[in-house]
Amino acid sequence: MDDSRLYSTRQPKIYAILCAMADTYIVADIGGTQIRAALFPSYQTTPVKIVRTSTQGDGQEPLERLLNLIATIWPVSDRVVAIAVAAPGPSDPYEGIVFEAPNIPGWTNVPLKKHLQERFQTLATIGNDANLAAMGEWRYGAGKGHNHLLYVTVSTGIGGGVISDGKLLLGVRGLAGELGHITVDPNGPMCGCGKRGHLEAIASGPAISRWVADEISRGVPSILSSRVNFSAKDVAWAANENDLLAKTALKRAGTYLGIAFADFLHIFNPSAIIIGGGVSRSGSHLLVPLRNALREHVISEAYLEDLVITTAALGDEVGLMGALALAQTLA
Amino acid sequence: MDDSRLYSTRQPKIYAILCAMADTYIVADIGGTQIRAALFPSYQTTPVKIVRTSTQGDGQEPLERLLNLIATIWPVSDRVVAIAVAAPGPSDPYEGIVFEAPNIPGWTNVPLKKHLQERFQTLATIGNDANLAAMGEWRYGAGKGHNHLLYVTVSTGIGGGVISDGKLLLGVRGLAGELGHITVDPNGPMCGCGKRGHLEAIASGPAISRWVADEISRGVPSILSSRVNFSAKDVAWAANENDLLAKTALKRAGTYLGIAFADFLHIFNPSAIIIGGGVSRSGSHLLVPLRNALREHVISEAYLEDLVITTAALGDEVGLMGALALAQTLA
Repeated sequence: MDDSRLYSTRQPKIYAILCAMADTYIVADIGGTQIRAALFPSYQTTPVKIVRTSTQGDGQEPLERLLNLIATIWPVSDRVVAIAVAAPGPSDPYEGIVFEAPNIPGWTNVPLKKHLQERFQTLATIGNDANLAAMGEWRYGAGKGHNHLLYVTVSTGIGGGVISDGKLLLGVRGLAGELGHITVDPNGPMCGCGKRGHLEAIASGPAISRWVADEISRGVPSILSSRVNFSAKDVAWAANENDLLAKTALKRAGTYLGIAFADFLHIFNPSAIIIGGGVSRSGSHLLVPLRNALREHVISEAYLEDLVITTAALGDEVGLMGALALAQTLA
Repeated sequence: MDDSRLYSTRQPKIYAILCAMADTYIVADIGGTQIRAALFPSYQTTPVKIVRTSTQGDGQEPLERLLNLIATIWPVSDRVVAIAVAAPGPSDPYEGIVFEAPNIPGWTNVPLKKHLQERFQTLATIGNDANLAAMGEWRYGAGKGHNHLLYVTVSTGIGGGVISDGKLLLGVRGLAGELGHITVDPNGPMCGCGKRGHLEAIASGPAISRWVADEISRGVPSILSSRVNFSAKDVAWAANENDLLAKTALKRAGTYLGIAFADFLHIFNPSAIIIGGGVSRSGSHLLVPLRNALREHVISEAYLEDLVITTAALGDEVGLMGALALAQTLA
């Protein structure tokens, strides 16, 4: 009998365990009411962790709440390649400064990238929500494969993001892509930005419901006339109930969107326009007039031949997915 | 005495001559009345040869005239790295096809790049005149150093070219940059393209002179009222003579240009806008209202802080210099 073999079988078994350190990305999306953060392994596009907290509360500043939220999903053993954060409002994507966040009082010129880098000692980057929505839809949503793409969100405001030749259009200070603030009627209504006749002043959600309210106050009949407050969503509901005023309101908004989209085709010659935001879910009462106006105002059929116009695919995840796409550009 | 030395001095002297083959570019600019071509050594931006011919004549097709003109400056011993041609009208810069050339009857879907490559057996590329003017002003003119730049030519029409992040904006089919065909007033006059209210329909040279003629026919007094035909250049002359109608006409055009430029700032956030074309030489009667309207319509001062607005620097050479800049991208 071989003693050594007998002896070895009595030894505790020792396994060689391969402890590879995986690459990950952490992304976050700051909204007016909640902040969300997610951890993505570099090889997949579904998060392994996703957490959220309210934007304000507990006597903490939103910045502190964001940083603490990120800390809760920091991987124990994996490496974080980069952090990317989608911030509302205008920002400097090069320096990583949020100029202002409309729904977060006191957020003015916040050097967010610097805070992230100092706290977590890793690469960090930020982008505004509309630009990152464009990146998200381009990489993972309705715009996959389109390297010349516009994303237009029609909601409380109208924002945009442009992918030009496979790259996010930023401009010299990162202020490009403000597609809602083009003048579509110099004599049109006042915009929230204080200038007259912008697309946002005519076709955003509040602009649609305000126009309906004004018409009702002029005596135009509508099933919405008994309501004290109503939104563009209510206008879409009324249009589906065959309310003439509501249908006219959506036709008006859709027509101006179509005129603006024709401008964008002439300027960018994209192969996809993706419409996001709540108003984009108004259905055919908005989208049919939009397409008709686009066809009517475009200078050549050649702009339409390769063009896909579609609604956004990513829903509420678009900010996180856009931030993921942005983080990946740092890898 | 050393015989060998004596003998060697009687030998005929033999020099080693270095015959290096230099790299060159050939560029051409096709206009409605003349075609120009130039030969540039790769190390300089002034041509060593420049030739021209009328676009039509001698029973030759314009294409044949272009190819023969290029042949006359083909270098004997140097290598031509690439040929680049500025063509009027819309074209496919990827495939090198001129869809149509407004002032050259019969030029429809001309595969210009293919003809150049087959005849000269070298790399060839084409671009439309406004896009190449943008490239020329960017590399060699008023836009040097600005990697986010718009070139707007205000002439018989209004055309444009966009440099975005150091690259010419082309779009999926090369139809991007049609900055004159954005709707600035949906109830405005009809555009040459058949659509209503475009910038070109209000602020191009013919649009300016047409508006003045209409006002005169309505009985508005002007020193131009005795003229049968007058151009935007005449309107600029009359404005300098303090003619109220002419000044109003240029103010109107300048204001709409300013509104459109505000749109372009929001869309592109450039650091330079360069205005070319004959109308840009109308002086302060046009440019002061333009700047005022721009300031009035821009949503944030941040768009103006890095912005240079200037007139084009290259004059008639802009097509050739733009073609040179394009040719260099192939090197």
